[in-house]
Amino acid sequence: MVEKDQKLSNVEPFKTVLSGNREAIAKLSLHELERILFATLTGMSVDDFQAEVKKWLASAKDGRWKRPYTDLIYQPMLEVMQYLRSNGFRTYIVTGGGQDFVRVYSERVYGIPPEQVVGTATGTRYGYQKDGSPFLTKEPKLLLNDDNAGKPEGIHLMIGRRPYAAFGNSTGDREMLEYTGAGDGARLMMLVLHDDAQREYAYGPAQGLPETQVGTFSQEFYDEARKKNWTVLSMKNDWKLFAFDEKG
Amino acid sequence: MVEKDQKLSNVEPFKTVLSGNREAIAKLSLHELERILFATLTGMSVDDFQAEVKKWLASAKDGRWKRPYTDLIYQPMLEVMQYLRSNGFRTYIVTGGGQDFVRVYSERVYGIPPEQVVGTATGTRYGYQKDGSPFLTKEPKLLLNDDNAGKPEGIHLMIGRRPYAAFGNSTGDREMLEYTGAGDGARLMMLVLHDDAQREYAYGPAQGLPETQVGTFSQEFYDEARKKNWTVLSMKNDWKLFAFDEKG
Repeated sequence: MVEKDQKLSNVEPFKTVLSGNREAIAKLSLHELERILFATLTGMSVDDFQAEVKKWLASAKDGRWKRPYTDLIYQPMLEVMQYLRSNGFRTYIVTGGGQDFVRVYSERVYGIPPEQVVGTATGTRYGYQKDGSPFLTKEPKLLLNDDNAGKPEGIHLMIGRRPYAAFGNSTGDREMLEYTGAGDGARLMMLVLHDDAQREYAYGPAQGLPETQVGTFSQEFYDEARKKNWTVLSMKNDWKLFAFDEKG
Repeated sequence: MVEKDQKLSNVEPFKTVLSGNREAIAKLSLHELERILFATLTGMSVDDFQAEVKKWLASAKDGRWKRPYTDLIYQPMLEVMQYLRSNGFRTYIVTGGGQDFVRVYSERVYGIPPEQVVGTATGTRYGYQKDGSPFLTKEPKLLLNDDNAGKPEGIHLMIGRRPYAAFGNSTGDREMLEYTGAGDGARLMMLVLHDDAQREYAYGPAQGLPETQVGTFSQEFYDEARKKNWTVLSMKNDWKLFAFDEKG
């Protein structure tokens, strides 16, 4: 976009993103992230967006693990979903990430089809190409900010019933777990604490773990979880088989 | 609501609704219907709304057929959905009706669970009762007007992939059928024409059938369907077994 409009390179939040300074980027507010999302995706067709995501996933690699991002998933997460599905449950991903983005790889990577991904969603606009064929264009209208209170709101919008089990890993999952636990009968609420710097990362700041700007797990939230008898799993101590690289 | 605020009885569109004049009510614009929806439902909890719908469905009867509304469904519609499900398809209802309303009875009546109902949807707001338990409140914010272009937009939002088959019965289904037909490989597009005044109703105005204010099937749309080789079914001629009362 900057190639087409040089002025953008001096305007925030674009300036920060272009700097490549990951710490500064991590400090951008939701409003600033929305501005980037809307500026870069508005007017793009849904089909083009999906093609761009596929292309990016096929080439991009994580800086530390030197693997495609879709390889960097948790074996215990796959196993618990498989276990639930084998017992008649339908499994969903409820993510603060972009719904259209996650849907591109969710089936291949997690065995979860597009219709079972609830994420941050913008509107689309139906229109016609010159040859009369219809297509959908991404619009700068936020329909669902699927984090914190937006998670139960998104679950109601997209699924329409309360989960029997919910799994999270940050303070942004609090309301989803509360909502799940407020149902009648048996409900399962579990949280994963990223406390394994060697096999993955260690951050909190709960339990004295390092601070983080993304995916915060606060001490207050940790205490609430304990009080409500939600299970808090330690990646370091409770996960034996962690991920791909341990399977050889 | 009028019991609590007498002034409303002299204000449109409330005045028209309270008059009980069905013809006048049918002529209300979408904007006026939205005003009613927002005025009556805003601030109601999702649980209370569901309880109200259940209560209404259990007691209300159609004026002509003297049966609960959930009895007034089409046997061929049930059969085609059962046939598709038996062959590995997942069936959805995509309706201009209220998503939260239809979800209350869709599983019992059509065998379609809440998460497979895409309808006109308003937002909700997550909050807490005095005892700390969480609940969702209906908000006066229209997220999806699921008719006409809103149907493919809603399908993308809620399902995230293109249908293989789509069935409609009014001009409001045009865009959904176009979107379905634009997919690659084999796709099935079917429309039902309400031309059976004896067993159901007859309206169009397509094919010289009477005019209607709700669920219009225009001649232009009929001609488009023929041109695109969409199948137009006549309720009168193509449906042998029609509904409950013929099964005895």
